[in-house]
Amino acid sequence: MTGTAERAARIMARCDALAVYSIEPGAITRPYGTPALTAAMDDVAAWMRNAGMTTRRDAIGNLIGVYDAAPDVPSPQTFLIGGHLDSVRNAGRYDGILGVLSGVAAVERLHARGTRLPFNVMVVAFVDEEGLRFHTTYLGSRAFAGTFDDAMLEVTDSEGRSLADVIRANGRDPGDIPAGAQDPASFLGWVEAHIEQGPVLEAADLPVGVVQAIVGGTRAAITFRGVAGHAGTVPMGNRHDALCAAAEFVLAVERVAGTRAGMVGTVGQLEVEKASSNVIPGEVRLTLDLRHHVDTTRAEAERELRDAAREIADRRGVALDWQEVQGYACTVCDLDLTAALARAVERAGIAPRRLPSGAGHDAVTLSAVMPVAMLFVRCRGGVSHNPAESITESDVAVTCQVLDNLLDDLAREHA
Amino acid sequence: MTGTAERAARIMARCDALAVYSIEPGAITRPYGTPALTAAMDDVAAWMRNAGMTTRRDAIGNLIGVYDAAPDVPSPQTFLIGGHLDSVRNAGRYDGILGVLSGVAAVERLHARGTRLPFNVMVVAFVDEEGLRFHTTYLGSRAFAGTFDDAMLEVTDSEGRSLADVIRANGRDPGDIPAGAQDPASFLGWVEAHIEQGPVLEAADLPVGVVQAIVGGTRAAITFRGVAGHAGTVPMGNRHDALCAAAEFVLAVERVAGTRAGMVGTVGQLEVEKASSNVIPGEVRLTLDLRHHVDTTRAEAERELRDAAREIADRRGVALDWQEVQGYACTVCDLDLTAALARAVERAGIAPRRLPSGAGHDAVTLSAVMPVAMLFVRCRGGVSHNPAESITESDVAVTCQVLDNLLDDLAREHA
Repeated sequence: MTGTAERAARIMARCDALAVYSIEPGAITRPYGTPALTAAMDDVAAWMRNAGMTTRRDAIGNLIGVYDAAPDVPSPQTFLIGGHLDSVRNAGRYDGILGVLSGVAAVERLHARGTRLPFNVMVVAFVDEEGLRFHTTYLGSRAFAGTFDDAMLEVTDSEGRSLADVIRANGRDPGDIPAGAQDPASFLGWVEAHIEQGPVLEAADLPVGVVQAIVGGTRAAITFRGVAGHAGTVPMGNRHDALCAAAEFVLAVERVAGTRAGMVGTVGQLEVEKASSNVIPGEVRLTLDLRHHVDTTRAEAERELRDAAREIADRRGVALDWQEVQGYACTVCDLDLTAALARAVERAGIAPRRLPSGAGHDAVTLSAVMPVAMLFVRCRGGVSHNPAESITESDVAVTCQVLDNLLDDLAREHA
Repeated sequence: MTGTAERAARIMARCDALAVYSIEPGAITRPYGTPALTAAMDDVAAWMRNAGMTTRRDAIGNLIGVYDAAPDVPSPQTFLIGGHLDSVRNAGRYDGILGVLSGVAAVERLHARGTRLPFNVMVVAFVDEEGLRFHTTYLGSRAFAGTFDDAMLEVTDSEGRSLADVIRANGRDPGDIPAGAQDPASFLGWVEAHIEQGPVLEAADLPVGVVQAIVGGTRAAITFRGVAGHAGTVPMGNRHDALCAAAEFVLAVERVAGTRAGMVGTVGQLEVEKASSNVIPGEVRLTLDLRHHVDTTRAEAERELRDAAREIADRRGVALDWQEVQGYACTVCDLDLTAALARAVERAGIAPRRLPSGAGHDAVTLSAVMPVAMLFVRCRGGVSHNPAESITESDVAVTCQVLDNLLDDLAREHA
């Protein structure tokens, strides 16, 4: 029952099983610190233990499963596989989850054969990669990597609850986070299998591909403040409509990103303050998400958008507030580990296509303290962050084969 | 204590007193069926009774105060003065309220002098003019006028509670609404004093003006449905971003309204469904409010906007849904009653400037069953539906004088 086909079928069934855990009926929405996420973590922990791993949760809530190295290895290092179990709103069932479950599946093969490697295999399910609740990202892997910023504890969710409060409400102590950080020296590296979330592998008719770099990104929270007024009585020429200003900016983002190869720009949230159908919008808050694989190109586009926002605001007599939330540079994957992953892909009979990741991943955080690599898995239509997220069981079987090959190669290398 | 100056001071103080009743701290927000509105109604009822009126609430919650005609008048008719006590979100303190309190003040003078007129004076505080809670308007005056549509009882608020439920939760029976409708034949007419909500009187240096017509309006609920997706991975050219489509439409509204004299067009609400900063908006719902004093011009602009929305949706591969919520034709005020009001203005020493109303008012509903007239009162900067709403005590004193003159004239006419 641990051939790649059997494990792939099990991974698919488990993705379906985890999809029921949600805070919204009829949708998959699993933010940090919710009972839905706890339930998903509990199921995965049970599967980890069935695969011969010991499990624990760290102070921020990451689930950590360890499959011990061969007992005769002195001070074994650890190889890390995983992903995350939190989600965006109305998410798909594979983003993040595939990384965790393919890690568990890799250990199931070892456990079934009674094989111990010359290093520990640790599978981690990070607890907050998407940042849905607190509008920040990588909280889980930051805590794990020791790069967690204590200031984050004071960030509040839409109901005014701080991260520290939510950690405590889940029975953990924010003060334990620093002590939970792992020793970087103990890790051989991190690999995550993740859906591509883009159209490249589908177009190339390849089940998997090897990630070369993760794009850098700019995130900003932007507010246009005009003057509210009566929709029936304030003449068009006397208005300072914050929504009209925001609309111009939304189209500027589309234009600026659309005219640069490989760039994507998105206004994902836009809220009209105290909105009524018969009131001219006085204040609009929106988010900007801008990404490119060349940091200087992204910086140039961001400058252009700041200038555009300023020009729009000035022309309309509207105030502008631009808060950069969290910029992050492009992350180049580790050359050696990525080469090893590419060889594992090749040994599975697949041409090792290299491609960039347009999305951020926990590898961004982990790359600060260990070698990172990522395997992309073809997804239908390149669709993700959407209930229509879809992958095939046979591509998941290839994924299992690649991870098996990689672990076997690393075992030989460290024997 | 019933000179125009004393009553104006009292009206200003009462506007301040009512402004504390709100469902939102730090703002005036008084939707239908809330304790905040009940509290305001209770205060006004007490002031009515102090002015010698009997008071009652009808089935939908309108507050009705009656100052009886002279006892020797057989089957007296009724003259109606009033406004509404509900508000938009984050409203000012005069819109609607001034009409009610100036009506009470008019009766106070009669009561203090022991004067009875050859008709009853009824002061009404309508319970829902703005439509904040159920996105429909004139619920109070429709019930009063007998034009209430029972289908409205099933309309739900943002929390899914129906109007019928809210009426019952306030201790009333929706089944009593038809019986509460007034007999049109018994009414001499309706007059409401209301802030102008526009810049005309301020520019003309006039304290009050006489409304000639109330503009017609189109209200629509529009949805753009695109495809949600990952903000980092879906190339710009592959997107069907519902927010970009909506942004184009917002600017089309501004352009179409801005190029027609006297027209106003507003998108007051815009919501991104399941919004996340890193998700391409899949669905956006927005409202359209379009007004003009010539119905054919408005219809032509509406057609142009429908065509624009269709073109935007088709070009972007996004679905469009256009629901007309409640269109209403231009209302011309009663010629005789408006002439009488203009004479009353003139007798107060003010040139009787005629002007249109860009906002809808309960007079629209009442005009179906009785003569209607409206007095506009200068407001600073033409600002309304906004905490900055501002009027002067001396303009309110003029308002009191005009209503006194009107009642005196009508009394002579019906003696």
